[in-house]
Amino acid sequence: MSVVYDRVALIGLGLIASSMAHAMRRDGLAGEIVGTARSAETRAVVEELGFCDRVVETAAEAVTDADLVVLAVPVGVMGDIAVGIGPHLKPGATVTDVGSVKRHVIETVTPHIPEGVHFIPGHPLAGTEHSGPRSGFADLFLNRWTLLIPDQTTDPAALQRLTDYWHALGAHVDVMDADHHDLVLAVTSHAPHLIAYTMVGVADDLRRVTDSEVIKYSAAGFRDFTRIAASDPTMWRDVFLTNKQATLEILGRFTEELFALQRAIRKGDGQHLYDYFTRTRAIRRGIIEAGQDIDAPDFGRGAVKK
Amino acid sequence: MSVVYDRVALIGLGLIASSMAHAMRRDGLAGEIVGTARSAETRAVVEELGFCDRVVETAAEAVTDADLVVLAVPVGVMGDIAVGIGPHLKPGATVTDVGSVKRHVIETVTPHIPEGVHFIPGHPLAGTEHSGPRSGFADLFLNRWTLLIPDQTTDPAALQRLTDYWHALGAHVDVMDADHHDLVLAVTSHAPHLIAYTMVGVADDLRRVTDSEVIKYSAAGFRDFTRIAASDPTMWRDVFLTNKQATLEILGRFTEELFALQRAIRKGDGQHLYDYFTRTRAIRRGIIEAGQDIDAPDFGRGAVKK
Repeated sequence: MSVVYDRVALIGLGLIASSMAHAMRRDGLAGEIVGTARSAETRAVVEELGFCDRVVETAAEAVTDADLVVLAVPVGVMGDIAVGIGPHLKPGATVTDVGSVKRHVIETVTPHIPEGVHFIPGHPLAGTEHSGPRSGFADLFLNRWTLLIPDQTTDPAALQRLTDYWHALGAHVDVMDADHHDLVLAVTSHAPHLIAYTMVGVADDLRRVTDSEVIKYSAAGFRDFTRIAASDPTMWRDVFLTNKQATLEILGRFTEELFALQRAIRKGDGQHLYDYFTRTRAIRRGIIEAGQDIDAPDFGRGAVKK
Repeated sequence: MSVVYDRVALIGLGLIASSMAHAMRRDGLAGEIVGTARSAETRAVVEELGFCDRVVETAAEAVTDADLVVLAVPVGVMGDIAVGIGPHLKPGATVTDVGSVKRHVIETVTPHIPEGVHFIPGHPLAGTEHSGPRSGFADLFLNRWTLLIPDQTTDPAALQRLTDYWHALGAHVDVMDADHHDLVLAVTSHAPHLIAYTMVGVADDLRRVTDSEVIKYSAAGFRDFTRIAASDPTMWRDVFLTNKQATLEILGRFTEELFALQRAIRKGDGQHLYDYFTRTRAIRRGIIEAGQDIDAPDFGRGAVKK
């Protein structure tokens, strides 16, 4: 592949940014990769790992002369970063972000983007339960979807170039409206994460079942919840605080359904349970057919020699 | 390895029984494996797959002269099976089961077990989202826990032999009291399954988010829920109907915690969220250290070429 942007600035150097850097390096997508992170410790780790050409101390310095600026920090601090970099952005540059919430990012970042700079929000639907600069890998985006959120003022050429860039990273690209994005993600990601965090917290709290029992016997279903509930706490705090309305709406729907199923259990209504459980199998088949998971039994990953 | 039981009868030929048969075959743990299933179609598939030495039409016929009888049917029909096999059990034989609920199985099966036959309930904590005779594989129990539920009348030699048998299948074995088992499983398995089924049902119901969006963008967390919610509907209906009390208790605790977190989101209490999410990470570390999952990012299983 060939260079898509001459200079790419990565603001924040966690799982997403480090994975982007590894993929850009492997495929020669950027002339130069400049990275920065707030923490001196993170910057030192990145210097050691060497996936940036230059690591600098401030976001303002990082974005200078950059053709693409990627905001890869928790959603709650995107606005502050925008304030700091606004005056230093190069005319004609593209600024994007990788935040899990889009309306809030648009509202806090847009006011600080100068005329002549293209701000095109984005969200790669890819991640693991690991975080930090050591957790990145070049294939993170392979066959995953990245959602871009242009508006009626977006420059078509800038959008096309950003689309080409994500394609080069291995991703599929869809365009979506910010509010719809925040609702879809509340369903597919934000509510499931809160539910998983909750269930793991309940298990941890229960005095009559010991932690060691929960851990030893986790293979029975709980294990998948702990993987989700091990995700980065700062990132997820910000997601819930900034996608409040959609998340609370979906959780309200969830609670309503849960109560109906609890009532079926209490009343011994086996038919209701059976019908409900049969319906949910179809969605699973759809996901496998869409190539977003494999049909190999989950058990495979757990067959670990002690 | 050597033969642990001369003749083993498998009643029900789904994921668990077929996996036991594959493992017994591979390691020569049984002199003869006799299998039966209610459905003629299942029996025909098993004849074709050949993992039983003999496939017979009735449970009564299957248990005749068997040294070990394994009840591997949904929890709700264990009692009926026991009625049918009781008069045909060989003196000195051991009967066990693989049901996910133990108090109910003990109450419905025990009255039909004749004097001189050892009934030792069991529960292998192993499974996948697949079901049926084609879904079994010999390594299903490898490094997983099997819980055995003896009582004060259990013959120590019969218990030891059943323990040796599960060890030979690759499992670790623990002994547990029936009521404690049902509570532990409500936490680690039954409540998580109901929650996953609920969340997948909510996604399917939501008119403003299309099914195709839910499916395409599932990698963001939802995917793990769909895997759990694709489990066998009959089995899970029976689990909830027969472990009603413990499941409803844990779901009550879950709802209480979920409401507290929803309230924190509504009020913007980021510290509460951050602290909660940090605490749940520790349990995940415990599970990995205990060898019940691997630390490779989940993403690996999803990197599927379309």
